[in-house]
Amino acid sequence: MFSKDFLFGASLSGFQFEMGNPNNEEELDKNTDWFVWVRDLGNIINGKVSGDLPEYGAGYYTNYKAVHNLAKEFGMNALRIGIEWSRIFKESTKDISLDDPNMLEKLDQLADKKAIEHYRDVLEDIKSKGLVAIVNLSHFTLPLWLHDPINVHKGKETEKLGWVSDDAPIEFAKYAEYIAWKFKDIVDMWSSMNEPHVVSQLGYFQTSAGFPPSYFNPSWYLKSLENQALAHNLAYDAIKKHTGKPVGVIYSFTWYDTVNNDEEIFESAMFLNNWNYMDRVKDKIDFVGVNYYTRAVIDRLLVPIKIDNYELNWYTLSGYGYSCVEDGFANSKRPSSEIGWEIYPEGLYNILKEIYNRYGKQIYITENGIADSSDKYRSFYIISHLYAVEKAINEGVPVKGYLHWSIIDNYEWAKGYGKRFGLAYTDFERKTYIPRPSMYILREIIKERSIDKFKGYDPYGLMNF
Amino acid sequence: MFSKDFLFGASLSGFQFEMGNPNNEEELDKNTDWFVWVRDLGNIINGKVSGDLPEYGAGYYTNYKAVHNLAKEFGMNALRIGIEWSRIFKESTKDISLDDPNMLEKLDQLADKKAIEHYRDVLEDIKSKGLVAIVNLSHFTLPLWLHDPINVHKGKETEKLGWVSDDAPIEFAKYAEYIAWKFKDIVDMWSSMNEPHVVSQLGYFQTSAGFPPSYFNPSWYLKSLENQALAHNLAYDAIKKHTGKPVGVIYSFTWYDTVNNDEEIFESAMFLNNWNYMDRVKDKIDFVGVNYYTRAVIDRLLVPIKIDNYELNWYTLSGYGYSCVEDGFANSKRPSSEIGWEIYPEGLYNILKEIYNRYGKQIYITENGIADSSDKYRSFYIISHLYAVEKAINEGVPVKGYLHWSIIDNYEWAKGYGKRFGLAYTDFERKTYIPRPSMYILREIIKERSIDKFKGYDPYGLMNF
Amino acid sequence: MFSKDFLFGASLSGFQFEMGNPNNEEELDKNTDWFVWVRDLGNIINGKVSGDLPEYGAGYYTNYKAVHNLAKEFGMNALRIGIEWSRIFKESTKDISLDDPNMLEKLDQLADKKAIEHYRDVLEDIKSKGLVAIVNLSHFTLPLWLHDPINVHKGKETEKLGWVSDDAPIEFAKYAEYIAWKFKDIVDMWSSMNEPHVVSQLGYFQTSAGFPPSYFNPSWYLKSLENQALAHNLAYDAIKKHTGKPVGVIYSFTWYDTVNNDEEIFESAMFLNNWNYMDRVKDKIDFVGVNYYTRAVIDRLLVPIKIDNYELNWYTLSGYGYSCVEDGFANSKRPSSEIGWEIYPEGLYNILKEIYNRYGKQIYITENGIADSSDKYRSFYIISHLYAVEKAINEGVPVKGYLHWSIIDNYEWAKGYGKRFGLAYTDFERKTYIPRPSMYILREIIKERSIDKFKGYDPYGLMNF
Amino acid sequence: MFSKDFLFGASLSGFQFEMGNPNNEEELDKNTDWFVWVRDLGNIINGKVSGDLPEYGAGYYTNYKAVHNLAKEFGMNALRIGIEWSRIFKESTKDISLDDPNMLEKLDQLADKKAIEHYRDVLEDIKSKGLVAIVNLSHFTLPLWLHDPINVHKGKETEKLGWVSDDAPIEFAKYAEYIAWKFKDIVDMWSSMNEPHVVSQLGYFQTSAGFPPSYFNPSWYLKSLENQALAHNLAYDAIKKHTGKPVGVIYSFTWYDTVNNDEEIFESAMFLNNWNYMDRVKDKIDFVGVNYYTRAVIDRLLVPIKIDNYELNWYTLSGYGYSCVEDGFANSKRPSSEIGWEIYPEGLYNILKEIYNRYGKQIYITENGIADSSDKYRSFYIISHLYAVEKAINEGVPVKGYLHWSIIDNYEWAKGYGKRFGLAYTDFERKTYIPRPSMYILREIIKERSIDKFKGYDPYGLMNF
Repeated sequence: MFSKDFLFGASLSGFQFEMGNPNNEEELDKNTDWFVWVRDLGNIINGKVSGDLPEYGAGYYTNYKAVHNLAKEFGMNALRIGIEWSRIFKESTKDISLDDPNMLEKLDQLADKKAIEHYRDVLEDIKSKGLVAIVNLSHFTLPLWLHDPINVHKGKETEKLGWVSDDAPIEFAKYAEYIAWKFKDIVDMWSSMNEPHVVSQLGYFQTSAGFPPSYFNPSWYLKSLENQALAHNLAYDAIKKHTGKPVGVIYSFTWYDTVNNDEEIFESAMFLNNWNYMDRVKDKIDFVGVNYYTRAVIDRLLVPIKIDNYELNWYTLSGYGYSCVEDGFANSKRPSSEIGWEIYPEGLYNILKEIYNRYGKQIYITENGIADSSDKYRSFYIISHLYAVEKAINEGVPVKGYLHWSIIDNYEWAKGYGKRFGLAYTDFERKTYIPRPSMYILREIIKERSIDKFKGYDPYGLMNF
Repeated sequence: MFSKDFLFGASLSGFQFEMGNPNNEEELDKNTDWFVWVRDLGNIINGKVSGDLPEYGAGYYTNYKAVHNLAKEFGMNALRIGIEWSRIFKESTKDISLDDPNMLEKLDQLADKKAIEHYRDVLEDIKSKGLVAIVNLSHFTLPLWLHDPINVHKGKETEKLGWVSDDAPIEFAKYAEYIAWKFKDIVDMWSSMNEPHVVSQLGYFQTSAGFPPSYFNPSWYLKSLENQALAHNLAYDAIKKHTGKPVGVIYSFTWYDTVNNDEEIFESAMFLNNWNYMDRVKDKIDFVGVNYYTRAVIDRLLVPIKIDNYELNWYTLSGYGYSCVEDGFANSKRPSSEIGWEIYPEGLYNILKEIYNRYGKQIYITENGIADSSDKYRSFYIISHLYAVEKAINEGVPVKGYLHWSIIDNYEWAKGYGKRFGLAYTDFERKTYIPRPSMYILREIIKERSIDKFKGYDPYGLMNF
Repeated sequence: MFSKDFLFGASLSGFQFEMGNPNNEEELDKNTDWFVWVRDLGNIINGKVSGDLPEYGAGYYTNYKAVHNLAKEFGMNALRIGIEWSRIFKESTKDISLDDPNMLEKLDQLADKKAIEHYRDVLEDIKSKGLVAIVNLSHFTLPLWLHDPINVHKGKETEKLGWVSDDAPIEFAKYAEYIAWKFKDIVDMWSSMNEPHVVSQLGYFQTSAGFPPSYFNPSWYLKSLENQALAHNLAYDAIKKHTGKPVGVIYSFTWYDTVNNDEEIFESAMFLNNWNYMDRVKDKIDFVGVNYYTRAVIDRLLVPIKIDNYELNWYTLSGYGYSCVEDGFANSKRPSSEIGWEIYPEGLYNILKEIYNRYGKQIYITENGIADSSDKYRSFYIISHLYAVEKAINEGVPVKGYLHWSIIDNYEWAKGYGKRFGLAYTDFERKTYIPRPSMYILREIIKERSIDKFKGYDPYGLMNF
Repeated sequence: MFSKDFLFGASLSGFQFEMGNPNNEEELDKNTDWFVWVRDLGNIINGKVSGDLPEYGAGYYTNYKAVHNLAKEFGMNALRIGIEWSRIFKESTKDISLDDPNMLEKLDQLADKKAIEHYRDVLEDIKSKGLVAIVNLSHFTLPLWLHDPINVHKGKETEKLGWVSDDAPIEFAKYAEYIAWKFKDIVDMWSSMNEPHVVSQLGYFQTSAGFPPSYFNPSWYLKSLENQALAHNLAYDAIKKHTGKPVGVIYSFTWYDTVNNDEEIFESAMFLNNWNYMDRVKDKIDFVGVNYYTRAVIDRLLVPIKIDNYELNWYTLSGYGYSCVEDGFANSKRPSSEIGWEIYPEGLYNILKEIYNRYGKQIYITENGIADSSDKYRSFYIISHLYAVEKAINEGVPVKGYLHWSIIDNYEWAKGYGKRFGLAYTDFERKTYIPRPSMYILREIIKERSIDKFKGYDPYGLMNF
């Protein structure tokens, strides 16, 4: 059973949902690193990115009301959106000092008024539908004045090093405080940033994933992670100056299974990929936002790799977790999604227990979903992951909400439009959103606030843990 | 849109659903050819049958109320059930003459009172839930006193030749009239028999399918079909003596596509497999019950095969229709179900047009469904086939109802329990019925009496005809 | 190393190789059960047989010299052929008593002189090429006057029950003695029959394999096996009256691996499928002819099946041995051939050891080969199985020869022409025989009388036992 | 038929074959860009390279006599080897002027004497076996003093730009003349370089292939190609100063099939990938060395891409040619090798005709082979490609030799040791070379100087063009 006040909703971000019309200048967000990155010729020719362009997307910027209606009709009581830093500040905020007593007013001069107005409209519509409004301030993208991904990628001299630069946390704190100041009246919950570790890992270490700047540099991987932690901490205090509403961070947690129950590499992997960031911000969070998709299975590396002080002594096995064939089956015989991710709900249960044991905070599931264009697995993906959540709650973990990723189909970064995570099928051409069958199942669950009706039917054996 | 009085429901049969407890003598139906057939050692060892036994099944005999409740809860307004001839008359009725003015009373002496009582209880419960009660009198099984499938299979001398014997139609007429006499007050619609052509075809021609008696004899194929037509005609008149309710027949229609638009083999196949029986009964039906699962794709046979007067000049291509790999894809790239049947809704539209053009009768979809244990296709199977039905209705075909096969999982004849057609997952051990997600989708459609909400989303391209 | 006098050659049979021209009456062998069986409409329609007809085959009857030349050119020193009983005695020999002092002369009256002459021509050509001539007297086929497979299959009354009939051993003894009397001067080694257990097993027990008469009757399975053993024993004595040359039997041995090293089911399976026949003939053989293709993996049957006095308490696992997918991989990850047989040479080594331990006789590998139309595995199939033979020889097993199945492509019984076992590709239309690459490899091995050159290269890991 | 003086042999290169012992300093070639490239951590972690290291290779440097023996034993009459520039000149030759009348003597001072001695030993052994000695001077690798692939990859400032630098052609000319001067007495045929277009294309354009420096820069792609052409032309003259022996270039030609017979994109692709380099060197070649593996299938690009003056208006379809699944089948149903290359011999025939029409020179097939660890396709790969060669010869194309890639297994650049192209299986640990079956087939062909024996057998339908 999920309590009356348990949040059931969906998560969106800015870049992946907003644009939808290449001819609508207001919708276009040309000032962000990803906008440039995904249209770089070399990236396209060499398959680092799909070639799909974000301006042909779902069009949430213009059609947000239709999406909010959908959320309401299907029983949701919360929605998470992202505000795009690069829309608010098209140009650098570096000239305005953090110590300046008139900082907010000066930032207000610099800020794009239309963008501010737009996000207020969006938030007011969310509130008008009776939905809890959750705002996340940074979701992968950085303003171009902070990050020049092409030049970094090519090794060219540039000051715009993104999160590697020590300026970034400062500028982020300004932006965060400004947004808090502008929207404190209407936002119910705040998150500083989304999946900081992914930004660092795919940007500087696992550079084959197609994320900007795809520049292999293990030290920068660690440096950018530290800077993102610092940025969060500064932002937390900055937001808290203006509001008593809860402020947290959204993190993509991975559960690790090891070959041969190898405790040492388990600890090592859990530390590097989960705790290394979270430990740095643990005193400045009111809640933990948990994004969970699947696990990883790891084995010991015979010759460890040094990353500054950290010794990487494990590697990820393909055939499990995030490393499966697309639209097939993992080596565990469980289905793998159209993006090649194993369906593994017990990983969510496991990680929830670990997170609560370590940090003792309230938890929200801020992302959970599946790339499944034909909706063949999504109903059971939801049911089985809610089973994991319920089991954790029953054992005392204070999970307070579940936000599905996502309510409509989105632009899946380097992979483009082919990976469909939406509860509602999105016709990118017509900008229509047609609920898939699984959305009716989620509606039923929300109505009942329970998955009991679905227990006992478990075609993939996902709910026997 | 489907009208207010459109019937939405499900179909069940006796043998495939009733039994569920090998220790409950009342439930067991040992007097039928299939009961003996599926436990024959030679059949099991050589894989003609699965080895699964029907007495470990869904247990509808005992738990019928739970199933009826499910139908009601999910918005259905009709249910089709089967009465088992071999339960009513455990012994031969041959000694009672059809001309005997006291025939019904004498049959009543012979009939199993408990069975009569049981079926009345079932029907009363159906009516008490406000469901239209549709009864079918023969569904594949024959009483052992009419058919000894093992001896026929082995070529041993026997008089119990099933539908090949000229006695069979007479005995069937007695049985039909007796049931009509007993249940005329409570049954809303009658069908004489289910899929007579399948019984003949798989029994005497395509003998690799595992149906009794699997004895290759093309003449018997035709003979048994004629006798089933005669049996229907006699039964029609017999039932009509006692009731004005509609009486029809349920037939498994196949739509034929040909390689190279070969009109001649199209006509030939349509005649042999659809019209050859239907033409013989066309004056004794108030409605046509259409069972539709998929199409067949056929090509010309270089050397035609003679079957008595009929010249078989075509053969079925594998990779399409009923001849696909299990749980894979047809050569058309469409999904094929766990029983290897291509999903092909336009075949339903096509055949509905042909049937109405030829016979001009009211039509009910009396079976339509998919073997899909994980429910990955069932929602769209239903939606796309209702799309076909709606299209036919819009073009003037009087389709009056849609009965899904089936509401719970069943014993799929020679294939056993592995092929799951139920809207509700059936735990055969615990006798529990847990609605699969698709059942909620069907409920939504029934509530709306429309599939409009689902149009525009068509992940498998099934609704663009 | 293989000794100088080690026989290297190939095996052929009559029915599978002889015919090649439907218009050549002399070539056609219409008097045999298989000739009738493979053209039965019911068998064809229901897929029991392929529909391929034997008269479109390799044409060895007419082109035997080309095949013998090929054997010689590629270094072989032996060839095994089959004589067709139904060619020699087109009509029943029952009227001639076994006790008649003039039996042979009377049989000679009845025998087909052209057939006798033909086989003499064939044998003389074999000898003229310097090849050891090995003759086998019965290879699956029976004369129609002894076996009416269609009527037996249909359960119709008939006296022509094949090996089930007690007449069969007597008639076989007459035929064997007659052939020995006619060809004693030219034949170097004799075998009574080929794979008697296969005839019984597939004829009366595992009736889905498409062998005549495919009539499930466990008692007949055992009875026909006993009669074949008796037939061998009578034939042995009959042949020995006329010649001192070695007389043996050719048997298809299967090696059994069990799940969980289950000694009991191992013994049970080894007995039923290998020793049950061999034990009955062990005092009347000068050598054992071993046909080996692959193993079987078995597991315990929870409910044993009674076959007369024998209790069958095991079953064969699919995914291994003879039960694999065609042209794919076994569950062991080893390749499976185009007929679905796992490549498993250690089974040959194992069974050779067992056979020698049990019977202490000289051994010839009388068949070993692979259905491999593209020749992708055949070279290593040969090498790895000769590795097994060599290992057995090194450990004292007196293996004296290796006859590959086969030198050209053949008619593979119910499977037809699609399964290609030939060292030489056979163009069935042009009757040309083009050595595949593997035939050059076998030539190299024969020349060297060693596989040492190929050791150390083992792409499928077949030679590390 | 292939004439008596037709060359049959194999090709080797330096880097891929020489090293075999990480502890043998003399064998190690640390002064080359590839040596550094394949051990770069970022390259390994991100899968740009396999992680296999070249010093664990076949060990030709030490074991060259065994390889030469193998060539001789299997009937070859020619062998192509590579000399490693970085072994001869470990340090820069820039200080010695091309105009210096004592250039050769000064280069001799700088050259590594041990390396010179080693290559003389190798060449003398080749000659002593009666093999034609063919030497190629540059095969992908560049000395580190000319190319710093890591810094170029990372976009760091460096002068060591490889073939992009205008110094490179000059230095190459010095090296070429020096080698010609040292080995003119013993080398029978010269080639300047191997597959220059691959070096440019994979280095600067299609940078996902894992070749150094993997730095996307379309202008550099063209520039480096021009410089390699210039280098060839200079080298040609330099070599010719010392010897009258034929000097050519070795080029990897691709045949292009287009969707819809699009003549324009055919010409465009043929120009860019084949003629753009060849046209620049066509007056300085005595023969064309043709490397051929497979084709490409291309289609029109809707939005053309500008590469300096060239407009790229086509793209390569996956599922064909070089873009197939590994060890599977192309969309054409033809097999694809373990490196994912379709078997397509008619492409060789087509390209031979085009090359001869365009340049009118003598042609040698300098590479042709298949990654096929289990040797399942290699025999027919060879046969079918020699069929293509013979067909071209019969139509007047002067093909003078066929060198297989390769005689033993090699280090396949970014893919490492997993892709096995050897006629002889190479045990990299024991440094043993065991001829695969296909090597015996090639021996047979060489002996017969004909593939006639194999015609008529064509399991994959490769020889019907």
